[in-house]
Amino acid sequence: MMNRSLFRAAVRSVQGSRTVTGRRCASSSAVFNWEDPLASAELFTEEELAIQDTARQYCQERLLPRVLDAYRNEDYDRKILEEMGEIGLLGASIEGYGCAGVSTVASGLITKEVERVDSGYRSGMSVQSSLAMTGIYEFGTEEQKQRFLPELAKGKLSGCFGLTEPNHGSDPGSMETVAREHPTKKGTYLLTGSKTWITNSPIADLALVWAKLETTGKIKGFIVERSRCPPGTFETPAIKNKSALRASITGMIQMDDCPVPAENMFPDVEGLTGPFTCLNSARLGIAFGTMGALEDCLARAREYSLERKQFKGNPLAKYQLVQKKLADAATDAAYGTLAAVQVARLKDAGKATPEMISMVKRQNCDRALVNSRILQEIFGGNAASDEYHIGRHVANLFVVQTYEGQSDIHALILGRAITGKQAFV
Amino acid sequence: MMNRSLFRAAVRSVQGSRTVTGRRCASSSAVFNWEDPLASAELFTEEELAIQDTARQYCQERLLPRVLDAYRNEDYDRKILEEMGEIGLLGASIEGYGCAGVSTVASGLITKEVERVDSGYRSGMSVQSSLAMTGIYEFGTEEQKQRFLPELAKGKLSGCFGLTEPNHGSDPGSMETVAREHPTKKGTYLLTGSKTWITNSPIADLALVWAKLETTGKIKGFIVERSRCPPGTFETPAIKNKSALRASITGMIQMDDCPVPAENMFPDVEGLTGPFTCLNSARLGIAFGTMGALEDCLARAREYSLERKQFKGNPLAKYQLVQKKLADAATDAAYGTLAAVQVARLKDAGKATPEMISMVKRQNCDRALVNSRILQEIFGGNAASDEYHIGRHVANLFVVQTYEGQSDIHALILGRAITGKQAFV
Amino acid sequence: MMNRSLFRAAVRSVQGSRTVTGRRCASSSAVFNWEDPLASAELFTEEELAIQDTARQYCQERLLPRVLDAYRNEDYDRKILEEMGEIGLLGASIEGYGCAGVSTVASGLITKEVERVDSGYRSGMSVQSSLAMTGIYEFGTEEQKQRFLPELAKGKLSGCFGLTEPNHGSDPGSMETVAREHPTKKGTYLLTGSKTWITNSPIADLALVWAKLETTGKIKGFIVERSRCPPGTFETPAIKNKSALRASITGMIQMDDCPVPAENMFPDVEGLTGPFTCLNSARLGIAFGTMGALEDCLARAREYSLERKQFKGNPLAKYQLVQKKLADAATDAAYGTLAAVQVARLKDAGKATPEMISMVKRQNCDRALVNSRILQEIFGGNAASDEYHIGRHVANLFVVQTYEGQSDIHALILGRAITGKQAFV
Amino acid sequence: MMNRSLFRAAVRSVQGSRTVTGRRCASSSAVFNWEDPLASAELFTEEELAIQDTARQYCQERLLPRVLDAYRNEDYDRKILEEMGEIGLLGASIEGYGCAGVSTVASGLITKEVERVDSGYRSGMSVQSSLAMTGIYEFGTEEQKQRFLPELAKGKLSGCFGLTEPNHGSDPGSMETVAREHPTKKGTYLLTGSKTWITNSPIADLALVWAKLETTGKIKGFIVERSRCPPGTFETPAIKNKSALRASITGMIQMDDCPVPAENMFPDVEGLTGPFTCLNSARLGIAFGTMGALEDCLARAREYSLERKQFKGNPLAKYQLVQKKLADAATDAAYGTLAAVQVARLKDAGKATPEMISMVKRQNCDRALVNSRILQEIFGGNAASDEYHIGRHVANLFVVQTYEGQSDIHALILGRAITGKQAFV
Repeated sequence: MMNRSLFRAAVRSVQGSRTVTGRRCASSSAVFNWEDPLASAELFTEEELAIQDTARQYCQERLLPRVLDAYRNEDYDRKILEEMGEIGLLGASIEGYGCAGVSTVASGLITKEVERVDSGYRSGMSVQSSLAMTGIYEFGTEEQKQRFLPELAKGKLSGCFGLTEPNHGSDPGSMETVAREHPTKKGTYLLTGSKTWITNSPIADLALVWAKLETTGKIKGFIVERSRCPPGTFETPAIKNKSALRASITGMIQMDDCPVPAENMFPDVEGLTGPFTCLNSARLGIAFGTMGALEDCLARAREYSLERKQFKGNPLAKYQLVQKKLADAATDAAYGTLAAVQVARLKDAGKATPEMISMVKRQNCDRALVNSRILQEIFGGNAASDEYHIGRHVANLFVVQTYEGQSDIHALILGRAITGKQAFV
Repeated sequence: MMNRSLFRAAVRSVQGSRTVTGRRCASSSAVFNWEDPLASAELFTEEELAIQDTARQYCQERLLPRVLDAYRNEDYDRKILEEMGEIGLLGASIEGYGCAGVSTVASGLITKEVERVDSGYRSGMSVQSSLAMTGIYEFGTEEQKQRFLPELAKGKLSGCFGLTEPNHGSDPGSMETVAREHPTKKGTYLLTGSKTWITNSPIADLALVWAKLETTGKIKGFIVERSRCPPGTFETPAIKNKSALRASITGMIQMDDCPVPAENMFPDVEGLTGPFTCLNSARLGIAFGTMGALEDCLARAREYSLERKQFKGNPLAKYQLVQKKLADAATDAAYGTLAAVQVARLKDAGKATPEMISMVKRQNCDRALVNSRILQEIFGGNAASDEYHIGRHVANLFVVQTYEGQSDIHALILGRAITGKQAFV
Repeated sequence: MMNRSLFRAAVRSVQGSRTVTGRRCASSSAVFNWEDPLASAELFTEEELAIQDTARQYCQERLLPRVLDAYRNEDYDRKILEEMGEIGLLGASIEGYGCAGVSTVASGLITKEVERVDSGYRSGMSVQSSLAMTGIYEFGTEEQKQRFLPELAKGKLSGCFGLTEPNHGSDPGSMETVAREHPTKKGTYLLTGSKTWITNSPIADLALVWAKLETTGKIKGFIVERSRCPPGTFETPAIKNKSALRASITGMIQMDDCPVPAENMFPDVEGLTGPFTCLNSARLGIAFGTMGALEDCLARAREYSLERKQFKGNPLAKYQLVQKKLADAATDAAYGTLAAVQVARLKDAGKATPEMISMVKRQNCDRALVNSRILQEIFGGNAASDEYHIGRHVANLFVVQTYEGQSDIHALILGRAITGKQAFV
Repeated sequence: MMNRSLFRAAVRSVQGSRTVTGRRCASSSAVFNWEDPLASAELFTEEELAIQDTARQYCQERLLPRVLDAYRNEDYDRKILEEMGEIGLLGASIEGYGCAGVSTVASGLITKEVERVDSGYRSGMSVQSSLAMTGIYEFGTEEQKQRFLPELAKGKLSGCFGLTEPNHGSDPGSMETVAREHPTKKGTYLLTGSKTWITNSPIADLALVWAKLETTGKIKGFIVERSRCPPGTFETPAIKNKSALRASITGMIQMDDCPVPAENMFPDVEGLTGPFTCLNSARLGIAFGTMGALEDCLARAREYSLERKQFKGNPLAKYQLVQKKLADAATDAAYGTLAAVQVARLKDAGKATPEMISMVKRQNCDRALVNSRILQEIFGGNAASDEYHIGRHVANLFVVQTYEGQSDIHALILGRAITGKQAFV
């Protein structure tokens, strides 16, 4: 439990130095903190706060300096996963197998700090943690867990998640990828099909691939190890010239009779339960993460508005139209954080439902996107310069809104839960 | 502490019958509840839930049947205050003086249940509880408290709050009402000036009036007892033909050398601290209350959409455009409730700030209004019939958005807190 | 052609006095006119401008003084139709039969002036002109036209339009009202069924009723004359306590074997072509009319913002947040007027399509509603007083958005025209 | 008048072949055309339609194939200006000097066709036509016109427009660039200062630079010829890594005692009249151009929605939520086009005002941006691929909204015109 003890140390240092007390005033003279307007920090344990501090420090010191070049050149640094692994950020909510075993809230706060820098970096981490690791942890055999989770937690192995297909974005149940039993080699499946928009696929050592069993037509999960795939059976070409999330690496997975041993299949889970469990974990992370991105937009817009002067030397911050934008964004960031925390607490208590996650994923993505765009207006033409960072967030957040359930899809999921009626046509 | 013991009994009955367990599933198989999508009930104590149940029962059984006629005829039933007093809804968060002494959350839940029926009924209660009683409780002498609070808590006395003036809506600091010392009668002040849009003024037994001391120019608070005012010195004509909040009674206060004994003045508080403390209490109540109104709109729109069939016999509920409206409203109601609860908890912990209250008052009013209007579209032309109730909520919520700080004013309060710059021109 | 000559006289008087030249500056020094920001008046003929002036004068001098009481008491003055008839406002675009025979643009400008006062007054006029008269003019026999149109044009007879049924708002094709041949009396039909939300029905002398022929199941149109209906066969109870359009009178039509002579049936038109032709005429009128209501909201909000002072004595008009609201509303009013004019011109050239009318009906209603609500915020709590008029417009415009095709229905009509796909479920 | 005769030929060919009659049906059976829903083409002359066809053909055949690479690599092809010059697109509304002398509407339609491909290409053209050429045409001496306009019209010379400074985006009146008389060389001015976000500056042969005369403090315009500037006095470094408008080239202008002969100064114009006249010309072009970009987004989203199938094989086009997005966009594109045409006609009639241009620049930018973003949602995750083009439009349109007057600035210009009150703080 190395990571956990590391966090514990962080907790003590915080308690000792009290350097962050501004966030947790217990005195009677409460002070408004624009960075946490509704004092969500009051809802966190000391350990959770310490984890957030650790994550923030790493993100601001190590990720932020890299992001501009990474984004410009679509160049993801594979070492990031190892760095994250080192301080325990990967699969953080998993118990055992070298993982930190922190609360879902703590895990969400990590996500928030990473996405405060860039949604692409958060995507890379989420795929590793919430999709690949959670899948194996929830549905894998003990042997699979032992074999893969510790190395994934360290970032030594990188994983990806192959669900979405070129023709089936919002409707994975119609997937075309099939797994058939090898005609001669017993205990081996042959996977054939294409997956697309797969974060990390070009650098993944293993891919959690969902495919329909030829015999039953039911969806099953397979851990495909790249190193064991013969040439030409498992290709992961990168998708370039993306208009967003350029600091993450994205690709396809093309499988042509790719052989996978039966012991790499998840034994029990069947149908969409498997992938949806993983997605729900990731979506809750997104609900936290987007609030980090929005808070960064707010902080940058606020700073710009205070520095930039127009007409009679007044800073933009003095204009009503600017203040309204800031107030709206601060409000939505505060509300979204509270909602994400609530669902995370419910999850740890066994009381969260997929619809709750649809709600916070959808709303937090929508509000982060809307507000980041409005904040971007404060920068005027300067928003076109990537050095102000906000254009990058805006572009990222649009894609984050569309993946793992586009906003409208989640609206219809909620609509179905509210009315009992299906409206997917 | 009659009221408190009454609540306690309610708690026990709930624990006994477990009839409301649907709201608090503790099992591992969590179920999505569209009426409380993010399970805010998990944040409440048994006592708070019992209080909410008591309030809801009263409101649905006693207020709802009266509201249509009251609204049509602008006819507020004075007995409502006594009924509310009987079950402990008035000044509920005050300790002692015959008040229930419940948590701020419980108090907010009461507010929510009343506004679920009608914002006007909630206005009437808020003025009594949050403005008149809170003012006396926070700033009154022990003698003033003893004299007025118990009767106000029972609803035997009705109170109103005179701050807003015809020419100074958003800017009370510029008020023109003055209090001057009686030229001959020592220990008496003469109040002169006009207040407008004063809920309950025409039926008020006492008015908490804010006026500038002629000598100092500082704002002071006075408890004006109608029964002690000579004819012509204290008039409270009703304002009729309101376009909303017609189930509450509203009027002016016209004072012409109205004599008030010095012992009815608040001794220590000076300036806007007094009225703003009261307003902050009321505003937090509004943050809860508007979520009640919105939830009622949602429930009614959902029901209508399930019953109303168009084209091929499909219920409206099956249409994507309808489901999106329902999903949006459910989301905003859930988020707004969580935020109000958070601020209420912070308040009880001495950690709430006025800006937090500005944020939840503003956002919850805005979102209640926007969503109620969108839900109203589901009713098509039938929305024009007052029997569907939603038009009434929409009209009410607009006014609620404007009073106790119009949305833009709170945006500028938040903008100032975020930027440190004043933008009120 | 009495009316036409009356208009001609108006034209001459305008040309003589040049009192309205502010609207039509031809000099090189163009001046921005906030009441017509994109100079739509440049698109009108002298005759059209004169007609607008006549209509405006009548509306401001005769309708405006009545509207507050009418709205408060749900009291429509039957004499208004006669007054409108006297100056040629009814069925104005019809050629012959005592009608003015003006352009569709001129007709739209009349509508705009009436709705500038109140959407209810405009509704009353539209039903007479665009629904009842247009129906008879387009589909009636020469004898029917001769019999009814001149008296309708004078407002001596009042008409209504019975299409919508209680269970079939957006889907008239499913109507349940039937017309069967009298079992014994040849040449007579018996109509049975209910129509609801019928403007003018309680005061109508004749009702244009759409019913399905029992024999064929096809929809046919009948002119039902109240005076010829035996007691109990044709009832038109008023719908009271409406939340909007209270200055117009609305009711049901309840027919129970109501006998109608065959010569009162439209001979050729069948199916929805008949009612939809009338509705399209009315909808184009609404596209103009709502811009009148919006312009009135803008003018009133502007005036209020200039008079109302807050903080340091500045008028609200000086605040950025207020100016933005005014600028948005002025823009949408100007754009909507141009679009309505374009469709009206196309209509007179035989080039308008129903989808165009869906577009301008929908957009102008939507934008009038959205902007009127935003302008209403400028009034703060004072908006609750009906003497500021804006709350009345807001309430009206919501209903106008829902009738003759709710916004979403028109969106789906447009969606079908754009994609070729039907999405009504 | 080579260009004009070229257009005339185009007109004839159109009249001969009648291949575009789909756009101008004169028959009684009007057909709805989703690409021009309100039949704006009816407002254009044959010549204007022919010019639009010529421009569209060039843009679709020559610009569209280049745009993806140009955008990816921030690589503007200097030859485009010459190509545009060849077919008469540059300075098209100027009379004489080798320019086409077409109507403002025709000029707007050219702009629309170019921006249908890319806002960056349109920016490059606008700077040449509306800023540099219009400036010289309106304010230059006859000699300046003769010397520069014909070569600019052909695209042999490229021009840029130096107004915006690093610290004065929305407030050019505070510019810091100065022009002082050469201490010894009579008839020469020395320009010193920085301009930024200058489209085309890195490739410009001449720059129209606005500077304050040291002696008077008044703003004057100078034609700076790069070839006559000594090394180090006139530098134009490119700004790279832009988040939008990457198909255009943008840079700074850094002047350090850059010598400009007095005969290159505009003799009469002084203050902001000069630059604002140019900007107004460009802004009206933007009002047209953005509608082209929006129409392209709509066409692409429509096509995608028809091809992309999800759930049960239904195309996205069949979903209500998708149809609403398409209907909204089509409406705003149609309305915006009509408004731009109206202002262009007014301009040619000498009746346009700057406020009108603020209105259409602002509204059309805003609506193009909002709708393009909503249409982008239809593409789901695929929007991240630049091959769908829509992400590029979205990114571009944000910047177009901010330049030549950010939306809020134009709101305040309109607000001032409506209220007579200044709110720039």
